[in-house]
Amino acid sequence: MKELIIKNENKILLIVLDGLGGLPINGKTELDKANTPNLDELTRKSELGLVISVDYGITPGSGPGHLALFGYDPLEIKIGRGVLEALGLGLKLNENTLAIRGNFATLKNGKIVSRRAGRINSEENKRLCEKLQKEIKFIKDCEIEFHPGIEHRFVILIKGENLLEEIKETDPQKDGLPPFLPASLSEESKKTSEILKILIEKGAEILKDEEKANYFLLRGYSKVPQIENFCERYQLKSLAIATYPMYKGIASLVGMDVIKSSISSWEEEIEELKRNYENYDFFYLHFKEIDTAGEDGDFERKVSLIEKFDSLLPQILKLNFSVIAITSDHSTPALIKGHSWHPSPFLLYSSFSRNNEKVKFCEKSCQKGSLGIFKATKVLPLLLAYSLRLKKFGA
Amino acid sequence: MKELIIKNENKILLIVLDGLGGLPINGKTELDKANTPNLDELTRKSELGLVISVDYGITPGSGPGHLALFGYDPLEIKIGRGVLEALGLGLKLNENTLAIRGNFATLKNGKIVSRRAGRINSEENKRLCEKLQKEIKFIKDCEIEFHPGIEHRFVILIKGENLLEEIKETDPQKDGLPPFLPASLSEESKKTSEILKILIEKGAEILKDEEKANYFLLRGYSKVPQIENFCERYQLKSLAIATYPMYKGIASLVGMDVIKSSISSWEEEIEELKRNYENYDFFYLHFKEIDTAGEDGDFERKVSLIEKFDSLLPQILKLNFSVIAITSDHSTPALIKGHSWHPSPFLLYSSFSRNNEKVKFCEKSCQKGSLGIFKATKVLPLLLAYSLRLKKFGA
Repeated sequence: MKELIIKNENKILLIVLDGLGGLPINGKTELDKANTPNLDELTRKSELGLVISVDYGITPGSGPGHLALFGYDPLEIKIGRGVLEALGLGLKLNENTLAIRGNFATLKNGKIVSRRAGRINSEENKRLCEKLQKEIKFIKDCEIEFHPGIEHRFVILIKGENLLEEIKETDPQKDGLPPFLPASLSEESKKTSEILKILIEKGAEILKDEEKANYFLLRGYSKVPQIENFCERYQLKSLAIATYPMYKGIASLVGMDVIKSSISSWEEEIEELKRNYENYDFFYLHFKEIDTAGEDGDFERKVSLIEKFDSLLPQILKLNFSVIAITSDHSTPALIKGHSWHPSPFLLYSSFSRNNEKVKFCEKSCQKGSLGIFKATKVLPLLLAYSLRLKKFGA
Repeated sequence: MKELIIKNENKILLIVLDGLGGLPINGKTELDKANTPNLDELTRKSELGLVISVDYGITPGSGPGHLALFGYDPLEIKIGRGVLEALGLGLKLNENTLAIRGNFATLKNGKIVSRRAGRINSEENKRLCEKLQKEIKFIKDCEIEFHPGIEHRFVILIKGENLLEEIKETDPQKDGLPPFLPASLSEESKKTSEILKILIEKGAEILKDEEKANYFLLRGYSKVPQIENFCERYQLKSLAIATYPMYKGIASLVGMDVIKSSISSWEEEIEELKRNYENYDFFYLHFKEIDTAGEDGDFERKVSLIEKFDSLLPQILKLNFSVIAITSDHSTPALIKGHSWHPSPFLLYSSFSRNNEKVKFCEKSCQKGSLGIFKATKVLPLLLAYSLRLKKFGA
C-alpha cells in the first residue's frame, strides 16, 4: 500500500468514542436509546460498518484497540504492561527505558502475606515512592525512577543501555508463597537481572519498618515496541488530542504529535482541534468518559454522554474535514461493566459515500452498512482512500 | 480446492460490465437510476453480494481487477506496464518477449525538454515507429519490434533469450533533466542493458532530424508473468469474448481461448456467445463502454448503457447457462471520473440460490445480499460450486 500513497490537502479526522459499542438492556443499547439528531443526520453522507479490533471473540485492551485503528497489526506489535502503565502516568519512554509495573506488598518471614499491601491508598503510595526515590537514584550505570500510581500500583523506570525484558516476574500470584527472584531468562539479560536484584534488596531495606508495604513485587518488564512511524507510513502530519495520559502515550508511541496543554473537558479538546486545524493532515480525537460510564455499568450516564457528544458534533462538522470516521477502540457495554469483544460501530463521512439515507446511528444500522463487518486494521487504508490519497494499484 | 474439482456439462458465464459500480449523484447511483426490468427479474433466482477486488480502500487497475475475478491473487501476480500496453495493442507475447513502454520525447543539449514530445499525434507516432522499424530489425541475436500507440506512446518488443526486466527506467520523470541510461540492475540483466543502450543510440541517430520526437524514453520493462493455466486449474474449457485488445490479452495470458474475429459491438459479442455456446464450459464476456462513460463522468450515458445491457440480457438468458455471474473488475463512478475502491455489485444466478425475492439490482441490494462483502478471488470457487463442480471436502 505504501507505494500507492500520494500527498494532498484533504483533512482527515478519526474520532474515537472510547467504549462506544453496547448491548441492549430492556431491548435497547446505549446508542439505540440516545437521542442523536446530529449523528443521524451525518449518516446521510456516511458509510456504516462494524469494526473488529483484533479478532472474533477477542476483547481488546486499549493498546491493541488503538494500534489496530492506527493500521498496525495488534498481534504483531505488543505493548507490555509496564509500558502501558507508564504511558497511563504520562511518562516519557525511549528505546533505553525499561518500564516495570510494581506492586507494594507485605512480606512476613520470607513469604508474601498480602500481594497488594492490604490495598494501601494512593497517598500512602506516593509517600512510599518518594521515600524510595530519595534513597535510590542510580544502580550501576542506570538511572532509577519511581512513579506512584493508584492504590498499591506504581511504575519503575530503569534508564540505561542494554536493558532487556527477559526477566522472571517476582509476583508468586498467590499469598502465602515467597516472592521469586528477578532471574535472567536469557544470557543477554544478566545485567538487567543484577540491577533488579539490587533494587529489590535496597528497596526492602528502605521499606523494612513499614507496617503494610514493606516489600514490592515486579512484573510486566517491557520496553517500547519498535513501531514504524505513523506520519511517515501514511505521509500524514498527525496530531493526537486526548485528555488521558495513556491515549496521548499510545499516539506518541506511534509517532503522532500530541497536544501539550493539559486539558480535561471535551469542549477544550474541540478548541484544540479548531486551533490546530490548519497545521495537520490527520487528527486523532479521543473522548474517554463514555468508556468509564460503561465500565461503571451506568447505562443512563453512557446514554447522556453519547448525547453530549452529539450536541458537540456540529462544531466539529463546521471545520470542513474531507473525511471523518467515528468509532471506538472496543465496545464497553454497561451490561458487561467492562470491555467486550462485540464489534464497534463505525461511521465514515465523505463526499464519496454510497449511502444517502438518513438512519439512526446504532449497532444495528452499522451492521447493515455498506462497509460490512471488517477488521480495524482496514480503517486507515479506507481513510486514505476516501481522502483520495491512494493511487490506482496496477494498470 | 484443485483436488475437489470434477468435470460436468454445466455451462458457466461470467459477465464483466467494466466499471459498473457507482456512487450517488442527487441521491441515486447509475444502477439506481437505470431501468433494468430483466436484471431485476433475474435477482429472483440470484444471490447478491459486493466484491472487493484487491483490498479495502484499494483502487484496482484492469489487470489486478481481472486477475482477481479469474481466481488469481492480484498481489502475487503482477502484470507490468509494458506487457499491459502490448496487450492493449493486441500484440502476442511469450516467455521470450520483453515488452517496453516507449514515450517519444524531445531532447535538447542532452536534456529532455518535453517528456511527451509535445504530445505528438498518433499519425506522427505511426510514421516514427515505421521509420525506426525500417532501420532497426535486430540487435545482437534479438528481434526488435516497434508498435505505435496513442499520441506519444508506443511499445517496443524485444524477442530473444535471457532477457530480463531488471533495468533502470530512462525517464527522468521531469522535464529539464538528462535521460537515464538503461543500466542493468542485476548481474544477469547485463545483456538486456547492452541491447537497450544500442537501441537508444541507434534510435536517437535515426530520429535526430525530427523537430519534436528526436528521442524516446523507456519504462515498464516487463515479461509475461508465470500464470497457472486457467483451463487446467479449473478444468474448464474457456472462451473470452471482448472487443478491446487489452481484455482479450489478459484472458489470453491466463490461457483462455479468445475469439478471433474483430468485432466491436455488444450485439456481435452476444452473437459470438451463441455461436460458441456448445463448444466451451466457461465464457468470459466483457462489455467495455460502461467504464468509459464512468471515466468520462457521463452519468446519463452510463445509465443508458446499463439499460442497453438489460435489454440484451434476455437473449443471453435464452441460452440456458447453469450459472451466470454479473459483476465488474472495479467501480467507475461518474462522480469520480475514474476507477474507485468501492466494492463491485455482484449477481450470481443459478438453480441453487437462497434468494427468491425480486429486488432491484443495485449497490444497496447487493450490500444486503446473501453473499455479503467478499474478495474477488472467491468468485471462481463460487462459480464452480454453483455449477456443481466441487466435491465435498473431507468426509
